[in-house]
Amino acid sequence: MKPGSNKHILIYIVAGVLAFAAMAARAADPLSSWREGPAKQAIVAFVAKVTKEHSPDFVSIPERIATFDNDGTLWAEQPMYFQLLFALDRVKALAPQHPEWKDQEPFASLLKGDMKGVLEGGEKAIAEIVMATHAGMTTAEFEQTVKDWLATAKHPKTGRPYTEMVYKPMLELLAYLRENHFKTFIVSGGGIEFMRPWTEKVYGIPPEQVVGSSIKTKYELRDGKPVLVRLPEINFIDDKAGKPVGINSHIGRRPIAAFGNSVGDQQMLEWTQAGGGARLMMLVHHDDAEREWAYGAESKIGTFSDALMAEAKQQSWVVISMKNDWKRIFAFEP
Amino acid sequence: MKPGSNKHILIYIVAGVLAFAAMAARAADPLSSWREGPAKQAIVAFVAKVTKEHSPDFVSIPERIATFDNDGTLWAEQPMYFQLLFALDRVKALAPQHPEWKDQEPFASLLKGDMKGVLEGGEKAIAEIVMATHAGMTTAEFEQTVKDWLATAKHPKTGRPYTEMVYKPMLELLAYLRENHFKTFIVSGGGIEFMRPWTEKVYGIPPEQVVGSSIKTKYELRDGKPVLVRLPEINFIDDKAGKPVGINSHIGRRPIAAFGNSVGDQQMLEWTQAGGGARLMMLVHHDDAEREWAYGAESKIGTFSDALMAEAKQQSWVVISMKNDWKRIFAFEP
Repeated sequence: MKPGSNKHILIYIVAGVLAFAAMAARAADPLSSWREGPAKQAIVAFVAKVTKEHSPDFVSIPERIATFDNDGTLWAEQPMYFQLLFALDRVKALAPQHPEWKDQEPFASLLKGDMKGVLEGGEKAIAEIVMATHAGMTTAEFEQTVKDWLATAKHPKTGRPYTEMVYKPMLELLAYLRENHFKTFIVSGGGIEFMRPWTEKVYGIPPEQVVGSSIKTKYELRDGKPVLVRLPEINFIDDKAGKPVGINSHIGRRPIAAFGNSVGDQQMLEWTQAGGGARLMMLVHHDDAEREWAYGAESKIGTFSDALMAEAKQQSWVVISMKNDWKRIFAFEP
Repeated sequence: MKPGSNKHILIYIVAGVLAFAAMAARAADPLSSWREGPAKQAIVAFVAKVTKEHSPDFVSIPERIATFDNDGTLWAEQPMYFQLLFALDRVKALAPQHPEWKDQEPFASLLKGDMKGVLEGGEKAIAEIVMATHAGMTTAEFEQTVKDWLATAKHPKTGRPYTEMVYKPMLELLAYLRENHFKTFIVSGGGIEFMRPWTEKVYGIPPEQVVGSSIKTKYELRDGKPVLVRLPEINFIDDKAGKPVGINSHIGRRPIAAFGNSVGDQQMLEWTQAGGGARLMMLVHHDDAEREWAYGAESKIGTFSDALMAEAKQQSWVVISMKNDWKRIFAFEP
């Protein structure tokens, strides 16, 4: 050992300690994609309050239920709901078996790539497309179709798989709540069986904690083997006033925290708040045209009306500005 | 210390060790109310198989889903479904507000205490009684009514609260499965909101893991406060071919173990078995007239038809004999 080695060793140790401290500091912030600000503060303060034993706001572990809208809250929803893009691709794939679609709306517009024309047909048009592409097969067949599509389809703007179009700050929030013994649920207007094949892998939310819209299914024996057949009949629309109904039906407890981004989430937040005690209601606001999209009151998808903004202010719901509150939106950002 | 004290101390130590060993032996058997026999063996062998890593039958923890019927499987169902006894008491309580019931079936029979007359009205009569007593109030009001009833009502034969009419061997089975990282669900033809107020306390099964029959609910604001109103309209019947539908809707995964006791559970067991791999299907057979009740093919409640028994044999479903397989049925037995 040369003279001076001890000094070198000391430098290495100091460098190591500093690197470790930096790592620990990062690890110590489970919400590292959130900028310091009112939204992050609201989350941290709420969690601290409800998890502190002997505090008046303490909530027992089984009652720590948090519900999340999906489209526009956990993953993106532009240029249109991803499930609609799935349905579009399915219409194209199934079109050879349906020559009548060429002259039949909304299929005709859809096959011409005229999405504006499709959206003009309103909810009825969307329901027809959903039924044509989501019913008539078994639940197992539908699940496989969703998985196959997600494995190959790419988002039209970013070129990324749809399952990468998820918001990193929200993934951190889900993990942070679960670390604090919350049970996290999805409560979405989207199709329950469209979400379940991938939510466990992408969000850590198992199928039994996914609530969504559904069509009816029927049990039958095919060649002696039981199957569930998906019928072209609406069972439940898990949107707006349907969300508290879906929460009650699937969860049977009232959430203490709820997260949404549009008028479809209004009643879920009202229902959550009305439970009394410490509650956290948050709305993601899409105000970042550069890194994501900017839309709100005028948008047909993910409508954030002025009335909703007014209610948020009046009720002290926290509005998350994607532009100001999130350091990073997608994990794939440079 | 007198001479000979050491000997006394030694005796105390030996006695202590023996007492401890006996206690440990009891603690080591999580299914101590089950007699050694084919039913207990089937349970233990199945659990060992699916929890042994690197075994071909290993099942990952999230996929360890077990579903239990309630009436006749977890708690008793004689002299009739307890929910029907609840409805009977509710009809009596509400009768002063409904003078027309005196001449209107099935209420007339019910108010005269003629339960045979009520049951002769079949499912339609039961549905009418259920609607009259289960709809028209908010979900919170109904929950309170159920809790109040359970706090005071007594079983007509045993004089015990209904929540004590639960089968001790099944409580042990639920706990044993959960110790082995199973998620336990109720999948019952009974009302989902009749069960949820007490399943967590009595069975350790939280509300979000209860699947049952339901009526529709509607979200509305009453004096500015959100409520869910129970409507006199069937939403879902979670029985027979409805059980796989309910499982798919609420759980979104196929169980690997299912437990029932009647023709209402047939399709749940078929659906469970059809998943392939290691599966456990069991049916409780009520064959103990002395300690519980003996009924089966001829019973209107908890029908265990000859066809079901034949299918159980053919499919190697395990039939649990309450008489032979259970050392003790209720915890309150002497």
